[in-house]
Amino acid sequence: MKTAVVALGGNAFQPAGEKWSYKQLARNVDKTCEILKILTKKYRLVISHGNAPQVGLLMLQQESTALAPKMPLDVLDAMTQGQLGYLIQKALNEKLKAKAVTVITQVLVDSHDPAFRHPTKPIGPYYKKKIEEDMVKQPGGWRRVVASPKPLRIIEIDEIKSLVKSGYVVISCGGGGIPVVKDKGKLIGVEAVIDKDLAAAVLAEDVKADMLIILTDVKAVFLNYRGGKGCEMELRKTTPEDAQRYMKEGHFAPGSMGPKVQAAIDFALKGGKTIITSPRYMEEALKGDAGTLIE
Amino acid sequence: MKTAVVALGGNAFQPAGEKWSYKQLARNVDKTCEILKILTKKYRLVISHGNAPQVGLLMLQQESTALAPKMPLDVLDAMTQGQLGYLIQKALNEKLKAKAVTVITQVLVDSHDPAFRHPTKPIGPYYKKKIEEDMVKQPGGWRRVVASPKPLRIIEIDEIKSLVKSGYVVISCGGGGIPVVKDKGKLIGVEAVIDKDLAAAVLAEDVKADMLIILTDVKAVFLNYRGGKGCEMELRKTTPEDAQRYMKEGHFAPGSMGPKVQAAIDFALKGGKTIITSPRYMEEALKGDAGTLIE
Repeated sequence: MKTAVVALGGNAFQPAGEKWSYKQLARNVDKTCEILKILTKKYRLVISHGNAPQVGLLMLQQESTALAPKMPLDVLDAMTQGQLGYLIQKALNEKLKAKAVTVITQVLVDSHDPAFRHPTKPIGPYYKKKIEEDMVKQPGGWRRVVASPKPLRIIEIDEIKSLVKSGYVVISCGGGGIPVVKDKGKLIGVEAVIDKDLAAAVLAEDVKADMLIILTDVKAVFLNYRGGKGCEMELRKTTPEDAQRYMKEGHFAPGSMGPKVQAAIDFALKGGKTIITSPRYMEEALKGDAGTLIE
Repeated sequence: MKTAVVALGGNAFQPAGEKWSYKQLARNVDKTCEILKILTKKYRLVISHGNAPQVGLLMLQQESTALAPKMPLDVLDAMTQGQLGYLIQKALNEKLKAKAVTVITQVLVDSHDPAFRHPTKPIGPYYKKKIEEDMVKQPGGWRRVVASPKPLRIIEIDEIKSLVKSGYVVISCGGGGIPVVKDKGKLIGVEAVIDKDLAAAVLAEDVKADMLIILTDVKAVFLNYRGGKGCEMELRKTTPEDAQRYMKEGHFAPGSMGPKVQAAIDFALKGGKTIITSPRYMEEALKGDAGTLIE
């Protein structure tokens, strides 16, 4: 059986415009997982997920009270892995009758990664106006940004591969993985949020996946998305080289479509295929009738 | 090689009397994990841990602000599994040079468990006086109590066994596991905190452990602890039958030493050995010179 790594969007679980609640989060996780059923006939699944709204909420929550000690961002990342891993695991058990298991995952980054000086990853709620220095404007409003270093290596990869081999649906690298740096042979957590799509590309390479499927809230990769310099065009199929050129031309927003296309390029350069689409179009995308295929 | 399940106390990571902070938590996790090195010559380790202070802090934190949606207690349990699992995993990697991995674990409970009507499990911070209905007095002060149903079955046990068999140090059933009930074949999370020692006894039986080691903040099990009705006595070695009798006589505090002794009784009745001691006395306890052995 073939293996697919599926990267689920943290924003898909708590999208801009919806009133965020636990029920809404659980419902969105359930809905997304249900759609993955289409894949199980052909693929053995390895799941990864984002955590941008969830980790931002935890950060906001702990900053708003002095009653409990604050945790650094790497620990908050770990907490969202538990939170979303549990909900996804339960949904996969129920909807796919799959034996799913969440592995708390650390991902090595470089302590000299330039990302630590230039935060780009939007997290947490959307605001009507800019209320802090490190914020960025997204379609849903202003959001805080944190450092997003490049994932280099998945620390628990052997454990993940062992579980995949034994036939379990493994949920790992949640929120892009908990970022750690190596210091004198010791792993130290750092305050950042790794892009989950870039981490999923590393995961896909490591588990020798036949396909990386990046699920997001748009149906495909667009050129001149929402009124760029020219005609808006849906990319149906492209090569890593062309994708790289479009990237340089500025077609893809950083911290949004940018890292998704970069993940696809990274994986394509190692010989892998990536589909970028929304859950709603996934079935058509698998037939080549929707979404964007990069190979 | 023999297998030992080690149950680490959540209260040991954030004890009454210490000023709670992230640094203090991480330091206590490091210190506890370092001590486990003594075990690695003889045993393959499977780790479980409590989450009473940590889950209580999360509950308190989310109740003190309306900025982020509140999560139910089962989700908070899952978050502490991520939080402490990550810290323990990292400490074991560093101090024991072990390949450690945290598995998010659900544990089945009975929806008709009487515990749901009588909350007994103390969680979160210690207060000088009773500020709520459901609180209990402990040596460190008043604490909130939540329902603590009996663990019946570990949902992810196959995954855990597969990882143990492959030679990894598995951290699982954190905080006693995320409590779930079965409803029409579907698993549903419930608002409770399972006792981690009782869950560790189920885990020890499932992984066919040779030894269950329950680490706590007292050096052994005492009769007439802190001025009961008679002489204070340290139990060095006992049988499940005698332990059961002492329990009935009221020697062990519910939500504290009670469930530890109960866990030891449960495991002894399945043929297992349990040591109850503090990290400081663990080495001596292994030789029979300290702690309490129940078999």
